[in-house]
Amino acid sequence: MERTWTTALAGKIGQLVRLMGWLHRLRQHRNVSFLVLRDAKGLAQIVVEDPALVERVAALHAESVLAVTGVVVARPEAPGGVEVHQPVFDVITAASEPPPFDLFRPRLPAQLPTILDHAPVALRHPRHRAYFQLAAALTGGFRATLRDLDFTEIQTPKLVAGATESGADVFPVDYFGQTAYLAQSPQFYKQMMVGVFERVYEVGPVFRAEPHDTPRHLNEYVSLDAEMGFITDHTEVMAVLSRVLAGMLGAVRAEAAAALTLLELELPEVPAAIPSLHFTEAVELVSTATGEDARHEPDLAPAHERWLGDWAKREHGSDFLFVVGYPMRKRPFYTHPDPHRPDYSNGFDLIFRGLELVTGGQRLHRHEDYLTTIAARGLSASSLAGYLDAFKHGMPPHGGFAIGLERFVARLVGADNIRETTLFPRDLHRLTP
Amino acid sequence: MERTWTTALAGKIGQLVRLMGWLHRLRQHRNVSFLVLRDAKGLAQIVVEDPALVERVAALHAESVLAVTGVVVARPEAPGGVEVHQPVFDVITAASEPPPFDLFRPRLPAQLPTILDHAPVALRHPRHRAYFQLAAALTGGFRATLRDLDFTEIQTPKLVAGATESGADVFPVDYFGQTAYLAQSPQFYKQMMVGVFERVYEVGPVFRAEPHDTPRHLNEYVSLDAEMGFITDHTEVMAVLSRVLAGMLGAVRAEAAAALTLLELELPEVPAAIPSLHFTEAVELVSTATGEDARHEPDLAPAHERWLGDWAKREHGSDFLFVVGYPMRKRPFYTHPDPHRPDYSNGFDLIFRGLELVTGGQRLHRHEDYLTTIAARGLSASSLAGYLDAFKHGMPPHGGFAIGLERFVARLVGADNIRETTLFPRDLHRLTP
Repeated sequence: MERTWTTALAGKIGQLVRLMGWLHRLRQHRNVSFLVLRDAKGLAQIVVEDPALVERVAALHAESVLAVTGVVVARPEAPGGVEVHQPVFDVITAASEPPPFDLFRPRLPAQLPTILDHAPVALRHPRHRAYFQLAAALTGGFRATLRDLDFTEIQTPKLVAGATESGADVFPVDYFGQTAYLAQSPQFYKQMMVGVFERVYEVGPVFRAEPHDTPRHLNEYVSLDAEMGFITDHTEVMAVLSRVLAGMLGAVRAEAAAALTLLELELPEVPAAIPSLHFTEAVELVSTATGEDARHEPDLAPAHERWLGDWAKREHGSDFLFVVGYPMRKRPFYTHPDPHRPDYSNGFDLIFRGLELVTGGQRLHRHEDYLTTIAARGLSASSLAGYLDAFKHGMPPHGGFAIGLERFVARLVGADNIRETTLFPRDLHRLTP
Repeated sequence: MERTWTTALAGKIGQLVRLMGWLHRLRQHRNVSFLVLRDAKGLAQIVVEDPALVERVAALHAESVLAVTGVVVARPEAPGGVEVHQPVFDVITAASEPPPFDLFRPRLPAQLPTILDHAPVALRHPRHRAYFQLAAALTGGFRATLRDLDFTEIQTPKLVAGATESGADVFPVDYFGQTAYLAQSPQFYKQMMVGVFERVYEVGPVFRAEPHDTPRHLNEYVSLDAEMGFITDHTEVMAVLSRVLAGMLGAVRAEAAAALTLLELELPEVPAAIPSLHFTEAVELVSTATGEDARHEPDLAPAHERWLGDWAKREHGSDFLFVVGYPMRKRPFYTHPDPHRPDYSNGFDLIFRGLELVTGGQRLHRHEDYLTTIAARGLSASSLAGYLDAFKHGMPPHGGFAIGLERFVARLVGADNIRETTLFPRDLHRLTP
């Protein structure tokens, strides 16, 4: 007999169906018991009246895997408006222990470390599962939008010979007796690939050996990267990013509607023109409003990003805000300066609900500019030889951006800690499960 | 003026257009010269008659980046049937050196090590570029087919606490003073996620510290992984794999048609039913035909895979062949035995044109079966604690497969060495570029 998804029951009233899934909950009453079965799509309520059957089911631990055959009955007061009656159970796999926490509560009744210790079980909770349905939809929307814009997908190596971003924050790997490093970003490779495909994107892991123990940092995360050639400046990159964000949120609406309902989420709108402030304007606003003089800082403090996020919401009704033209001295060596104000960059951050979500900008494209900046910053041209090769041989003006996937989900669902929206987080203290 | 792609010229005869791209080739004749410009999509021939202009262009190294404005003229004998006349050139970026090899030759005139040393330039060659257009289309087809079959995309960590496949072949990472390892596969995580989404897939890097220096091995490659729950046995996994292969090749036809034409490729058909041999039948066939007694080997030798590939082509007209039921002793500990012949597994390989392309099978799903096999194989249950947690709490019968992306492209294009179809290969001797 073919399997029916729990979410398809409402269309099968009066029919005999076969469900398969996990024993989510059993509520025993004097005359009748209710078993809630969970499958990949949803939940179904099964009415068990036969005392012998109730006893058999009650002997199973929650999370046992069952097949249930029964008749679908309309019941307006039941969840989803249907129930399954006259059930026959097959135990596919009996759980050997009860779960470490009740999965049927609206929120997992456990602290974050316990949830993370038991991730294989915790992720089965409908709310946690929904986070990763959002992540899958966002990722799909990222790719689909860029494919429509003539971008080509690439997969670049994660074992590399040196740092791409900051030299200190790389993980060393014992590579057949040599030292390799884990890529902090696909930055160099996506730039090189602009010489091949002009427009490229990659979805992949990045590794940051930052010894930060904060609710915002991970040591491994998923980066959604794009890079494009033949641009005039960073504003074209920002325009593509705006379309990508709209495409990502559109994919969530289209493909993760059930997750949105379950999480009771309002998705943000991407404004036709995302409000934009120059870095100098942003620090001026913050300094005037807060009385803290941020005018000589090379970067925005987290509290100032939050203030600017509130400002964008208040003044422009926007959850998104571009801050453009960060000082060159805090941006990586490949950053292109603003030709009119060379102490400032053609680089931007996108702040989403008060947190930096995307970093991007125009990159240097002339070989001689790379040699100059590498010398000025005291970097080693020889360790960058492979990368510089691309620039010797003709590269167009180009730029791109990188979106942190887990961070995007965390801000969308209002998670306090990015670990909640990370499948199996890696941090200073955690390498398992 | 808006940019025109080289491939769109045939629709713009008589119009003034602006092209952008790389100086692919300059052919100088006494009265006229021909400049070939390459962009991300193709090539265009530009006729240069003005001697001053020829001199200016001839002073540039190949691979300089240009914008060219000119008039499109029909010219049946020119490549693509069109030429651009009366050109005006803007040099966007002058190359600072000539390329290490001529990119305009039908094949790159260099040995593989030279090609790999200069990958950022070599990948610009239309033939090499086409390999990665195939890879992008195959990857897109993999995802699209599985999404249609209710699979959910996941991204699992690459920094892990131990080995998943063979204990010897892992790269150690210095992780804040602890030792972490690079994931040899997403095997454990995709299985755990069957408990969450039932059907999952992942496209991501895998790392194998195998000290093999062969044309078939890489130390980092892209694995296309899928895993599905509520199966009867491995044959359902094989059925999904067949649909996935058809979807991948269909995506190549739909999205990489120009690459197929350029490479003069015939894509294989996926038969409605891929021929299948039990391992014991396969070794019997090989032993009888070759006179080499392979009957007591636990695995197929590369030469025997080649022989079987030829056999499938000859006997069944198929480029694909399933070999099913490999001996348990050579399969990983999570392999599900054949209930009727417990020395053999519910595992399979898919041989494509004589090379193992996919490995898959049914996995154990009962917690007690894991404990038994872990004890019997002398593995450590404590180092597998996080993984085993999933099985304590109810897992359905499940199975899955993994496709090696670079290997698939290599077999499709007939590359002698997998490094040719790997974006920036990593091997015993190569970590750069």
